[in-house]
Amino acid sequence: MVAPFRFEHLHTDPTGARRGRFHTPHGSVETPIFMPVGTAATVKAMTTGELTTIGAQIILANTYHLFLRPGHGLIKKMGGVHRFMNWDGPLLTDSGGYQVFSLGDLRTLSEEGAAFRSNIDGSKQFLSPEIAIEIQEALGADIIMQLDECPPHPATREYLARSLEMSLRWGKRCKEARHKEPDGKALFGIMQGGMDESLRRLSAAGLVDEGYDGYAMGGLSVGEPKEMMAEVLSYAPNLLPADKPRYLMGVGRPEDLVMAVQAGVDMFDCVMPTRNARNGQLFTRRGAFNIKRHENRESDQPVDPHCGCDTCRHYSRAYLRHLFINKEILGHRLMTQHNLAFYLDLMNNMRQAIQKDQFGPFQRSFYQAQAGEGSGAWGWRQD
Amino acid sequence: MVAPFRFEHLHTDPTGARRGRFHTPHGSVETPIFMPVGTAATVKAMTTGELTTIGAQIILANTYHLFLRPGHGLIKKMGGVHRFMNWDGPLLTDSGGYQVFSLGDLRTLSEEGAAFRSNIDGSKQFLSPEIAIEIQEALGADIIMQLDECPPHPATREYLARSLEMSLRWGKRCKEARHKEPDGKALFGIMQGGMDESLRRLSAAGLVDEGYDGYAMGGLSVGEPKEMMAEVLSYAPNLLPADKPRYLMGVGRPEDLVMAVQAGVDMFDCVMPTRNARNGQLFTRRGAFNIKRHENRESDQPVDPHCGCDTCRHYSRAYLRHLFINKEILGHRLMTQHNLAFYLDLMNNMRQAIQKDQFGPFQRSFYQAQAGEGSGAWGWRQD
Repeated sequence: MVAPFRFEHLHTDPTGARRGRFHTPHGSVETPIFMPVGTAATVKAMTTGELTTIGAQIILANTYHLFLRPGHGLIKKMGGVHRFMNWDGPLLTDSGGYQVFSLGDLRTLSEEGAAFRSNIDGSKQFLSPEIAIEIQEALGADIIMQLDECPPHPATREYLARSLEMSLRWGKRCKEARHKEPDGKALFGIMQGGMDESLRRLSAAGLVDEGYDGYAMGGLSVGEPKEMMAEVLSYAPNLLPADKPRYLMGVGRPEDLVMAVQAGVDMFDCVMPTRNARNGQLFTRRGAFNIKRHENRESDQPVDPHCGCDTCRHYSRAYLRHLFINKEILGHRLMTQHNLAFYLDLMNNMRQAIQKDQFGPFQRSFYQAQAGEGSGAWGWRQD
Repeated sequence: MVAPFRFEHLHTDPTGARRGRFHTPHGSVETPIFMPVGTAATVKAMTTGELTTIGAQIILANTYHLFLRPGHGLIKKMGGVHRFMNWDGPLLTDSGGYQVFSLGDLRTLSEEGAAFRSNIDGSKQFLSPEIAIEIQEALGADIIMQLDECPPHPATREYLARSLEMSLRWGKRCKEARHKEPDGKALFGIMQGGMDESLRRLSAAGLVDEGYDGYAMGGLSVGEPKEMMAEVLSYAPNLLPADKPRYLMGVGRPEDLVMAVQAGVDMFDCVMPTRNARNGQLFTRRGAFNIKRHENRESDQPVDPHCGCDTCRHYSRAYLRHLFINKEILGHRLMTQHNLAFYLDLMNNMRQAIQKDQFGPFQRSFYQAQAGEGSGAWGWRQD
């Protein structure tokens, strides 16, 4: 008998930030949490051993990419994503919808699903709620996402309303398509509704009525101004049940994570730490900078003196800049490692602050340090 | 007082293969040895910690590349190549000559040295024996190579004769330019003479007359047929003193290393294991193959079942093929790690075989396994 997916809401800080824990067949996860993105069954440039070392608890893989190449049939045959990529912790897969809808003219949407052409070989493909579930089950995900439509921004209220209704029906079909025997895995519904509060309410009510193991917020970080996302986050998380995990998809910059945690969000994923590392951008307690900058040329300083990752313990900015300019693979590795360590350490600090009812002081300390004020450490701790 | 560079000739097997050990300011090295190439102060795709894990004892860095970018002045300021790249083992640098002479029309040679244009920014540069020493000392090399001319193949006897005489004079100038205080570091002379035995003798005699801490053989693996290299190796190593290390530069394939060790060579370097890994070619006990091959698509087998490297312990050929096809950095990492582990393990096996007077049986076992015969293990051991 497999234990069912379960979320414990452990604590709420005076600011509204939540501490929690969820349990999957591949282990437990402390929330709030950031999930490194392993698009093609690899978190780019990293081994899974390194992910564990820097504190990754759960990773994400992309259904769209794995469906097209190497195919979920092959991955299933190889023992699922876990065995394929040598990761034995919890795994979340998206539904593939976001990537398909990003294809623009290459896809056609209907009630049945989305017909599209592969961006790899131009072949005709089809994604429906049922197929999205079949793929994610073949991949072996611990957390499965419903297929939904993620509308562009801006979109008309009418479009958003029709779209979210279809996403609700797709969610229902996903639920029906799920493996019938208890397997301990979770199915998450996804709230849509753009920047419109009444539509967000409608979407949330529909999802809650159906009932899911967890709830995601989609349709944010899709090009809207920062203030608009902040506004949606001021009400949207609390439209969702307090006893289930809340996942803000595709977000975001460090300051977005801090804001969203205060708003009651538990889970995040974003390619920013990995992708930006490959473009030379490094995140630190005193803000982000690009390693290419001339001032790093002769700097024997680490990226972030308050960071304990291997990159910061063993390598200078001058060396990283040299590697980056020479397009050396090791540069991508070391900078990715640091950025992910920074994100995971940020989440760890937030978890500790919430537990001690210190999220307010943590936030002030975080924003001060990001603005380059003070020592650069997050001086919130009241040990 | 720094201990001087020292070579111990420990044992000679009945085949002529040698076991030895040399001592540098950054530690000792057991020979015969393969040196991974860290061109731009990074063994491509690898951390120095991983190099240590797979048994690397000494690595090589390229003077030409580091001279042009980031410059030896910067590296000296950053504490030398060792501190810059976080490597605390022995380091050998080449003289930069080979790369300069490979520039073809971009360089002009004179008795004084080589004027050339940087392949990076077209700037005018100059390399002389004195400058080659200055750069290598700034880089902090434990083993410094003399500047020599590496003639192309084929070349006329007259050209080869004139060239090797100049290389002898350049070697003398390198020796004179060396740091005067004892620093425990070695200066190696380089034998030239193309495929001509009398010229090789002339070159060796000149070098031995001058006296170096070790001797390299240059001008091989420059496009000549395999049999020609074998012929030169049948006499060239033994033109050099038995009590100094012998280094065959830029060689080679696994079978070349086995042949050359039997001929009495102690040291090797080559980009083949690292570069070929990035092209998908993997070395195994049963010969080399390319990971792209269709038969690897659904293979849950490791690259080499007799290999104990992380890649072979944790990842299938199917996964490596998937990473390679998706141009994932992790693919380059894992395949580089395996190829280097294979080379280093091959050298380790050769050292053990020599020590036990079993190099003959080892060779037979090696060639059989490379031909795909037998279990694929090197079944020479007489434990």
